[in-house]
Order: sequence, then C-alpha cells, then structure tokens
Amino acid sequence: MYAVIMAGGVGTRFWPRSRVKRPKQLLNIVDDQTMIQATIARLDNLIPYEQTYIVTTKPQKEEIFNQLPFLKSKNLIIEPKGKNTAPCIGLAAIILKQQNPEAVMAVLPADHRIQNETHFRKVLAAAEILAARNDCLVTLGINPTYPSTGYGYIQINEKKDEVSGLEAYKVKTFAEKPDQKTAERFLKSGDFFWNSGMFIWKIETILSEIEKSLPDLYDGLMEIEKSLGTKNEKEVIQKVYCQIKSISIDYGVMEQSTNVFVLKGEFEWNDVGSWEEVYKISSKDSKKNVLFGNHLLKESTGCLIDVPKRFVGAIGIENLIVVETDDALLICPRNKAQEVKELVDTMNQKKMDEYL
Amino acid sequence: MYAVIMAGGVGTRFWPRSRVKRPKQLLNIVDDQTMIQATIARLDNLIPYEQTYIVTTKPQKEEIFNQLPFLKSKNLIIEPKGKNTAPCIGLAAIILKQQNPEAVMAVLPADHRIQNETHFRKVLAAAEILAARNDCLVTLGINPTYPSTGYGYIQINEKKDEVSGLEAYKVKTFAEKPDQKTAERFLKSGDFFWNSGMFIWKIETILSEIEKSLPDLYDGLMEIEKSLGTKNEKEVIQKVYCQIKSISIDYGVMEQSTNVFVLKGEFEWNDVGSWEEVYKISSKDSKKNVLFGNHLLKESTGCLIDVPKRFVGAIGIENLIVVETDDALLICPRNKAQEVKELVDTMNQKKMDEYL
Repeated sequence: MYAVIMAGGVGTRFWPRSRVKRPKQLLNIVDDQTMIQATIARLDNLIPYEQTYIVTTKPQKEEIFNQLPFLKSKNLIIEPKGKNTAPCIGLAAIILKQQNPEAVMAVLPADHRIQNETHFRKVLAAAEILAARNDCLVTLGINPTYPSTGYGYIQINEKKDEVSGLEAYKVKTFAEKPDQKTAERFLKSGDFFWNSGMFIWKIETILSEIEKSLPDLYDGLMEIEKSLGTKNEKEVIQKVYCQIKSISIDYGVMEQSTNVFVLKGEFEWNDVGSWEEVYKISSKDSKKNVLFGNHLLKESTGCLIDVPKRFVGAIGIENLIVVETDDALLICPRNKAQEVKELVDTMNQKKMDEYL
Repeated sequence: MYAVIMAGGVGTRFWPRSRVKRPKQLLNIVDDQTMIQATIARLDNLIPYEQTYIVTTKPQKEEIFNQLPFLKSKNLIIEPKGKNTAPCIGLAAIILKQQNPEAVMAVLPADHRIQNETHFRKVLAAAEILAARNDCLVTLGINPTYPSTGYGYIQINEKKDEVSGLEAYKVKTFAEKPDQKTAERFLKSGDFFWNSGMFIWKIETILSEIEKSLPDLYDGLMEIEKSLGTKNEKEVIQKVYCQIKSISIDYGVMEQSTNVFVLKGEFEWNDVGSWEEVYKISSKDSKKNVLFGNHLLKESTGCLIDVPKRFVGAIGIENLIVVETDDALLICPRNKAQEVKELVDTMNQKKMDEYL
C-alpha cells in the first residue's frame, strides 16, 4: 500500500498560528509533533517511508522538508495551486501509477488527529484488502460519539463484506454538515457514520471513477501522464492546473459513484477543524479552561488561552479563545471559532500580507 | 505658592502597564506626556519649578528623574514607605516650612487628568488667596457632570466667600463613593461636588489641623523637623514612618475639621482610576471601541484594546479590556476593571515579582 498525504490545506481557521507558509498540518496544535509528523508516524510498520507521498503547494515545501528531514524529493508532489482534493488525488494517482500500476493508495489528510493508532492501522490494512478484492472505493467511516454539526455524515446500506473482523457497508447517501436536530437524528438512527475524508483504493479504480465522473479532470491527468519524466512535465502540470475546476473528491467522485464501501473505524478521530475543536480535545482544569503558558485567572471559565511568551492575567472571562504568536493576537468567543476563517479572508482582501 | 505633587501611588489598577517601578503617574496612559509630566506642565506660569516638590517612594525615584530631567534633588521628597496621604502631606509641610514658613502649599495628586488648564490655574490662584485670607483648608470641588459611583462627594453649606468670581462654600459633609441611586440623588440635589483630592492651605494651617486631629502624626513630624539638615535626618524619618499610622488626609483631617472651604472648579477632571476611566475619556470609533495599535475587528463593540506591538484580530467581543505589554497580557470585561487591583494583590501574595 502507498500513502498519499494531502498536505495542501491553508488552515486559516488556526490563525494567528497558521500562516500561508505554516498551515495547520505544519503546526503542533495539540501534540508535541506537528500534525503532518504525527500523520506519518502513525503509518509506522504499515506503509514504508519510501511509499509515502506528500502532496502540497510550493509555499509549504521548505517547512515540510524541515519537519520531515528523511523525505526524498521524489516523494513530495507539488501542486501549482490548491484545486481542492479531486485534482490532488488524481495527480498523485498518475504519479504512483508510474511506480506501481497495481498499487493500492491510502489517501490521508495531513491534519487530522487520531488516537488508538494500533486499531487505526488495523482498519487501514483491512481497507487495503477490501479495496483490492472488490475493486471499489473505500472510505473510512467513524462511529459517531456525539451529534456533531461540524462533520459530514455517511448513511450506510446493508453490510456487504467483512475484513479482519471489521464490517464494511455499501453507501446509501452522503450528508453535508447537519443542523443540531438532524445530527441528533443521525446519531440515534445508528446507520450514520462521520465522513473521515480518508480513502483507500486501487489506482486503476480511482482513475476509472474519475474518468466517469470528472472527464475534464481525467483528460488533464492523461495529458500530465504523458509528460511525466520529460522536460515539459512542470509546464504541463502548470497548464492543466490552470484549466481544471477546483472540486472535492467527495462531491466530484464519491457522491457520484455506486461503488463505494464504508469501512467502520472505531479509533478516536477529530479533524481539528477550529480552535473550538482544540478546546474540545485538550485536557482542562477544574474551571474548564485549557491553558498553555503562564497565567493567573480570576473567575474565568471555559477559555482556551494559548499565549506562550507572556504572562496572562484575566478576570471574569468566559468561553473565550485567546491565542497569541510573536506578531499577532486573536480574541474571540469559542462559539465564533469558525469565523476566524472569515477574519483571515478579510485580511487577505485588505492585503495584510505581513500577518497572513 | 508651592506645589506638593503626591506621586507615591502604586497604581495597581493599571496592571500590566503599571508596575512597582512605574506606577500610573509615570505612565502616558491617555496623553503623550506621562501623568506626572502633565501635572507639572499644568502649573506653568503659576508655580515655578523651583517651588514644586514631589513626594514619592524610593522605587520610583530613578524613573521620576528620567521623566523630569530638570528636577533638583532637593525638590524630591522620598518617603521610606507609603503611609497614605496624611503623613505624606505632613512631611512635605515641615520640609517646606524650612524654606518659607509663610508659604501656601497646593497639594496635587500626580495622576489626575485635567482639561481646560487655564481655568484650572485660575481656580488654583483663587484658592491661594482664599487659603491665605481665611486661614482655612481649601479643597477643590468639581461640579459633577454625571452620577459617578467612583468618586467621593462633598456636600456644601451656604456660600461663604468669592474669589476672582469663583464661589467658595463651607463643607457640610464628606460622602464616600455612593451607590448608583445615591449618586443620582447627589447630582440632582445640586449641593454636592466631586471630591478632587486637591488641597490648598498655608503650612501653618495644615500643621495646626494635624496637631488637632492626628496628634501622633504631629509628634512624629516635630521629631523629624528637629532632625532636618542634620546627619540623623534620614534615620529619624525612617523611624517615624515605621511608627505612624497609615491614614488619608480626607479621613484623618478634612472630615474632622470645621475649617474647610470648597472652591468650585469647572475644569474637566478625571482621576483616571481604572482602565474603565481610560475607556471613558478616550475617543472612540463608530463601534464605541478605543483602539491603540494595529487591528482588525469583526462585530466587536465597546472594547478598549491597547496592544502596541502586535496585530490584534478579534471577532464578536464586547466591552472587553485587552492591554498588553512586553511581558504580560490583561483581559477582563470593562465592568470588572476595578478588580485588576485584586488580581495584582493575588500576584503579590504569590510573589510573582517578575510581573509586578
């Protein structure tokens, strides 16, 4: 099995810690390791380093090599620009095809947090078997533990297969992030999983599905394939990326396909989508505060305070996110954590490049 | 007239900007000048520099000389430790008595903000005349403009005198900081002034009043007086200060005396007692925010943000005080600004000297 680590995200929701050159996957937001380091470490003994590919964009290249000093150039795939997950996966597929056209590839985001890694590897190994023997698209579904409104859901049909004691189902439908009431219904029904965004398939399977659902992308990929290893390679990739549509693999392929299996994962999973998720997964003091650094709080509860280089004195603050870096300070209520993205969008419009 | 600038305050309510070595009066909280610089500049053309004395404690000495480079050593009176205003004023009185026993002294806090300075000087000049011709204690009363619960009040009796067109009254009673309802009643009644804590009197008048109301302090002052100019001077001051009670001039003398006149001041006055007062007197943007430094705010109102060296991004915060220095960050709601003092008290107990 080959790993394709999608590491092109810009992670604006983690501003001010996330920056253009250092998005979420390159930060150590919840652990000592950065998220990309943890993503790769998690594959230990399952997928060799040699067979692990990282897809990213140029601004992050330098920092990725810093963080993964054993990474070889050939294992880093640079997209000319981010065009969402379908082109990213397509590009990786044709590059891997050159190495080994029979290969199964595991597509893994570089910025998710997974605990119970032994079980995770067991699920991934089972997914490889499932993908190979059914020529299908496999997605990992997470057993939901609470009615999250921040995740997409997958509704399952009858059980179709079993590998290494793990159940595999056919997909009935994909559901976008639901409202609270719908999320509660999903949880209660028992036939919905969280959509983890982790996929396993044979190269030929995904390429054939792309050909069916995204013929323009497929044509572009074929054009790129012809150029691989020639002096035109970069130029052709650049040209194709200028033309192709930005589209997610979920919307562009998974939701169109009738050939998707869900393999149930029971490991702990979090996509760490915002500071609020960091709050949720971090250990708290008796006042439900998550505190990094030096501080003195009076009558303050439910806060996430990450101010490493300064002493923080606080009085009577509640459910507030306070994050500081060398050059910037973010303050917002926890329930507005999603809006950090919009704040950064505004900074982009205002060309505040210094802080992006 | 001589000026006695009381500059011994510790100003903990302005943490993290105020520190032991740099309390409020040595900060430029609302203007370009520091508060003590503004206090002295305000006396220009009324009281010569030569006749201006500053009373403080040792930790602030160096910074006072930095900020007032023309200050002569003899014009700086060092108290061994802060014992509130009565000992401070008594010590200044006996030191000034050596220079000029006939003198009138104006006692002025170093950390108040006054606008309309021309009128202020007119009031002060009138107070000198009033104090000299009636052998009385003169306090400046400020015509209240709103029902403040943060100031003490003075209730006046019938008008007793008039100087330079300004009215002077006898005091009926002093009132502590009132609750909201009482403050509204005071404002409505029309016979209450804010107690500005600025006093004008002849040296002999105040010393005789101290003798009457605070005989222990008076004895200590007489002991010090004998030592002035001898080699024992420092030692005696030290000894007396160890023994005397910490007490305010208001409680210890003014409220006991039957010889107090209030001269009405119509200049704009603020004791700048907390970050909330800074918010009140500062100019605001259209969302009622007071912002110093570089920032981008979304849906945020009523905040005071003073973060000079970092870019601040904020979403949905309301009525919050955010103040940062090189080593510390304060966050608290505006209506808890008074509690900053208690935060600093706790830091003191915990011996967090680094941040005090």
